[in-house]
Amino acid sequence: MNLRPVTDRPLRIAMLGCGVVGTEVARLLTRDSDELARRVGVPLELVGIAVRRLDAPRDVDLPSDLFTTDAHALVTSGVDVVVEVIGGVEPARELILAALESGASVVTANKALLAADGAHLFEAAEKAERDLSFEAAVAGAIPIVRPLRESLAGDRVQRVLGIVNGTTNFILDQMTTLGQDFGEALVDAQRLGYAEADPTADVEGHDAAAKAALLAGLAFHTNLSIEDVHCEGISRVTADDVRSAADMGCVVKLLAICELHDTDSGPAVVARVHPAMVPTSHPLASVRGAYNAVFVESEAAGQLMFYGPGAGGAPTASAVLGDVVSVARNRARNVFGPGETSHAEVELLPIGRARTRYHVAIAVEDRTGVLAIIAQEFARFGVSIQNLRQEGHGSDAQLVIVTHEAEDAALAATIDALRGLDVVREVSSVMRVEGGF
Amino acid sequence: MNLRPVTDRPLRIAMLGCGVVGTEVARLLTRDSDELARRVGVPLELVGIAVRRLDAPRDVDLPSDLFTTDAHALVTSGVDVVVEVIGGVEPARELILAALESGASVVTANKALLAADGAHLFEAAEKAERDLSFEAAVAGAIPIVRPLRESLAGDRVQRVLGIVNGTTNFILDQMTTLGQDFGEALVDAQRLGYAEADPTADVEGHDAAAKAALLAGLAFHTNLSIEDVHCEGISRVTADDVRSAADMGCVVKLLAICELHDTDSGPAVVARVHPAMVPTSHPLASVRGAYNAVFVESEAAGQLMFYGPGAGGAPTASAVLGDVVSVARNRARNVFGPGETSHAEVELLPIGRARTRYHVAIAVEDRTGVLAIIAQEFARFGVSIQNLRQEGHGSDAQLVIVTHEAEDAALAATIDALRGLDVVREVSSVMRVEGGF
Repeated sequence: MNLRPVTDRPLRIAMLGCGVVGTEVARLLTRDSDELARRVGVPLELVGIAVRRLDAPRDVDLPSDLFTTDAHALVTSGVDVVVEVIGGVEPARELILAALESGASVVTANKALLAADGAHLFEAAEKAERDLSFEAAVAGAIPIVRPLRESLAGDRVQRVLGIVNGTTNFILDQMTTLGQDFGEALVDAQRLGYAEADPTADVEGHDAAAKAALLAGLAFHTNLSIEDVHCEGISRVTADDVRSAADMGCVVKLLAICELHDTDSGPAVVARVHPAMVPTSHPLASVRGAYNAVFVESEAAGQLMFYGPGAGGAPTASAVLGDVVSVARNRARNVFGPGETSHAEVELLPIGRARTRYHVAIAVEDRTGVLAIIAQEFARFGVSIQNLRQEGHGSDAQLVIVTHEAEDAALAATIDALRGLDVVREVSSVMRVEGGF
Repeated sequence: MNLRPVTDRPLRIAMLGCGVVGTEVARLLTRDSDELARRVGVPLELVGIAVRRLDAPRDVDLPSDLFTTDAHALVTSGVDVVVEVIGGVEPARELILAALESGASVVTANKALLAADGAHLFEAAEKAERDLSFEAAVAGAIPIVRPLRESLAGDRVQRVLGIVNGTTNFILDQMTTLGQDFGEALVDAQRLGYAEADPTADVEGHDAAAKAALLAGLAFHTNLSIEDVHCEGISRVTADDVRSAADMGCVVKLLAICELHDTDSGPAVVARVHPAMVPTSHPLASVRGAYNAVFVESEAAGQLMFYGPGAGGAPTASAVLGDVVSVARNRARNVFGPGETSHAEVELLPIGRARTRYHVAIAVEDRTGVLAIIAQEFARFGVSIQNLRQEGHGSDAQLVIVTHEAEDAALAATIDALRGLDVVREVSSVMRVEGGF
């Protein structure tokens, strides 16, 4: 048996990057070294930190000879564990591959890289017989990788619904509680440090889409890249949409949704990111501000939710350190962890095949027979109407319709057809409804 | 390296018990055998099920020669993994010890046993160099063991607040939403199958206390038994308490609370189970019905919450199977998992040393100067009043007081002293307030 560490020499840890997360990782690694040594079985020694500029100001008290600008030399110097917190695709990818080839296990917080080229990296780790851990890359500090990969390993996950981007959740929260429109809420979020000067990656859903790709891979034991995720952001969500959601007892959330479908040719996955109306009774509805949550539906376990801070230096560092302890524990015993199980051959379906429900607001001519014409158009595409509300008169006449569940393609085709009707002045709002209702 | 399975022979699984959970475990083990074999690396073979009566009716289609009444012979027959789902302390304990000694790894859902004698069993597993996994013993299907033990391994958990008993949560929910008193809500819970005919273990908090002991052990890397947990149930919670909580923007929940305190002689733990008022804005407040949730506060990660079904055959079976996959994966590779880290030497503090806040309702004489006399009594014990409300007149005169945080012993002493005052007719309600306010 391989219980005890096969070595008692300290494990050598190298870190790539020393920004907000890296600083916190370095601080905890050095401050808690005795406790971490007990948890791992052997001491951990931080032997080097690769940075771009040696003279950059840093909020951590470390010997200056730890720092180097030669990241490649550091990761190939025979270290045991490499912690990658530089982010972005290159040079992170090249450095992780070099580290694995040199015999180091790797801990990364880099969702962009994993969502772009995870399959290749996991394969390299498998070939090198080393761990590649990434808890911090999915929903920050929320422990979701181990639960999906290990705790639910005997179950069948059917659906994952996540609020996985704090910036957009904060903005939508402001719109809901203060009645702000998107532009006002974005400016507030930027002023308060919740949104970056260039907010594109957050508000257009790209960050959430990267996480959706990772979540789908974990949940369904397969590999997805960000290219496989249908992605719509929140920049077109209006104050009217938010009010209309409230009228229905819903809130608007940006959701990352990964679902397993049974098709004639076997299991298939749809992964999508888009704003959706969620009933206030759903556990995800009360996830506020910059918090994240991942809601999992599985066959035997039922409904589970994981909630916590989705970003930030200290929370992300906590997730990184959890991985460092696991990986180091394995290194000291000359073993490694479960790795990625990408054995499942699941087809990828386009968004059109997803089953969902639409909330539609339509500005219509105020005359007899309009309702029948509209209803006929839904029926023509096989879309059943669950709820219909007529509002206003004259030039304000409006229909608000919520459909039953149907394929997204049929719903989208219905909307296109409505836009071509002469009784329709404008389809003023279209939003999916998720999470039961 | 020890990546690949060192064997390709099927792993032999024995199960003890075939009740609601066992039936579901057996069903999933046999139905999903191909998928599980891929996840483990080698096939899993259910080779025997020990039951008390061979002729009991069972809701699962299994060959009758799988069943035996000789549990001891089964666990010592050279099986690789023993799944224990009989519950209770004996014979479960003796059988688990025999299984470990015979070289089997063990998966158990038995919180009563672990809370009574976990330290001894974990030591036996360590000595036998085998896994002893118990995800299903803490909060049912909610993955909490791996997050606490592994994901947060590089962090410092400071506090765990759990709603870990579905029966009491259902009863308190009924009292809150329907205004029922405890007796009525209990009868409803029994009628609907949420409470047993003898509800003592649930309503008096014993079940929650067992889980609190396990949670405290995991969170603080130590060992606690149920004897170490202060325990008060919900049978004395009144409809008035629930209304009074609502008046303050709170709901009443039965909480399992484990906290780390810094004392002069080092870190110390308090573990307690009691009803408490929780602000509706707290994530735990919206945990409804038979659902469970565990809220974790840690230094770096911040506030995390894990939510899901706390009981039931299928959810518990999901947690058991997740453990079976992990344990079997280790067995196939001749290694074993992190085990229990009970290295921390933490002192155990009595409930009197816990810091909390009290909500107190006092029926008083309706005359001048009463308020000053009462306030003086709080001051005498160093307890600061945050909020005071006078209600009613004459024989209905009542004071409702919420304190600032203080040591439980000081708060309890204040209540005792109040009871001795001649201006006090009755201390009609005392309840702790938790979760910020």
